[in-house]
Amino acid sequence: MSLPAVKALTFDVFGTVVDWRTSIARELRAALEPAGHEFDWLQLADEWRGGYQPALEQVRSGARPWVTLDVLHHENLVELLAKHDIAELSESEIEELSHAWWRLDPWPDAVEGLSRLKQRFIIATLSNGNIALMVNLAKHGALPWDAILGAEISHSYKEQPITYLGSAEALGLRPDECAMVAAHNDDLVAAGALGFRTMYVNRPAEHGPGQTTDIRALHDFDIAATSLTDLARQLEC
Amino acid sequence: MSLPAVKALTFDVFGTVVDWRTSIARELRAALEPAGHEFDWLQLADEWRGGYQPALEQVRSGARPWVTLDVLHHENLVELLAKHDIAELSESEIEELSHAWWRLDPWPDAVEGLSRLKQRFIIATLSNGNIALMVNLAKHGALPWDAILGAEISHSYKEQPITYLGSAEALGLRPDECAMVAAHNDDLVAAGALGFRTMYVNRPAEHGPGQTTDIRALHDFDIAATSLTDLARQLEC
Repeated sequence: MSLPAVKALTFDVFGTVVDWRTSIARELRAALEPAGHEFDWLQLADEWRGGYQPALEQVRSGARPWVTLDVLHHENLVELLAKHDIAELSESEIEELSHAWWRLDPWPDAVEGLSRLKQRFIIATLSNGNIALMVNLAKHGALPWDAILGAEISHSYKEQPITYLGSAEALGLRPDECAMVAAHNDDLVAAGALGFRTMYVNRPAEHGPGQTTDIRALHDFDIAATSLTDLARQLEC
Repeated sequence: MSLPAVKALTFDVFGTVVDWRTSIARELRAALEPAGHEFDWLQLADEWRGGYQPALEQVRSGARPWVTLDVLHHENLVELLAKHDIAELSESEIEELSHAWWRLDPWPDAVEGLSRLKQRFIIATLSNGNIALMVNLAKHGALPWDAILGAEISHSYKEQPITYLGSAEALGLRPDECAMVAAHNDDLVAAGALGFRTMYVNRPAEHGPGQTTDIRALHDFDIAATSLTDLARQLEC
């Protein structure tokens, strides 16, 4: 597949590049099991993530001013702990646990795929994660980004148009010189409507074995790939 | 030298990491000599750079709204060409030549020094260069930044305090968890006054053999180094 105008690939990160679910389950377990708590840790991870879209919607709707995803993750963790009557964590322990989102492991194909794609394209995050979160995630997983863009650049959250357009503008590129790479149909539809090229990466186990959404490309995207190394292969990187 | 609180090194780029002067002279010559122009190319590079601080000052003073350094470089090039009665370049050729600032070569020690420092620290740009400029510069010279910060993050220009503080905040760090690395005394004094640690790198030939300013550290910085590899050595990287 040749898309000669494309100069930059902009990436969704949670689910597309990193496996947040098993990593968060591991982090929750490491923090809570020593104190005697027993949970279905994957389900607890899903509960924490469950607060994500409602929190973003508060910002997208204008009901509250822009705050970083680190702040929202922290708030949602405090709620999660309260709901399950977990009261013994200190403030600094809660802060440390809220940074579990800085320690998500990449999918096995991610580092090789990104490294190959980086040889031919600018590769940048276009995630709802803030800069500190994305930088620490990159350090944890050796993700070789050229730039950290996305939500914090424009103080907005996907799928608000300005989140995509602000990242393209920061790169000095037109939308059609950028390709959005994501495992989520909605993300690609939103980017595509603004003129971005669209590249779907299938992650049918992001939400576990029973996943029912985003198990395949539902639209005619420019590319549909099974992994980031498969994407690199299709782009001849 | 051990500075245990420091988690991120933030870098001045023009002069500290890349050799803008000989690179710009080369680019000007490549663009203008084929049409029969003859110049002292290094002096012409100095003239172009001479418009830099006055243009920034227009923004810093509030006389004009924030615009990117790419825009200011372009405007200053148009003035430079007019001053020397160079009229035959097309708009797209002027645009291409204005991007000479995307093609500056790193000092010989820069890539090795940054790569070693990156093993232990977050390394980020804290330059007046905008994101597109810094990303393209990194691609040109294989500079392994973890993040592109600086002027465009806060829509301000050094040495305005918000340029430094906005970059530290984007990393989720206090100023004293960041160290400014620069070849310019003023840059380090400004960062130090805000609580940053300060690391001087000597570049006595940035402005050529007759350089009279910034030929040595004039203040008691945390570190004074002769190169980025020397800085890595002093930080035990």
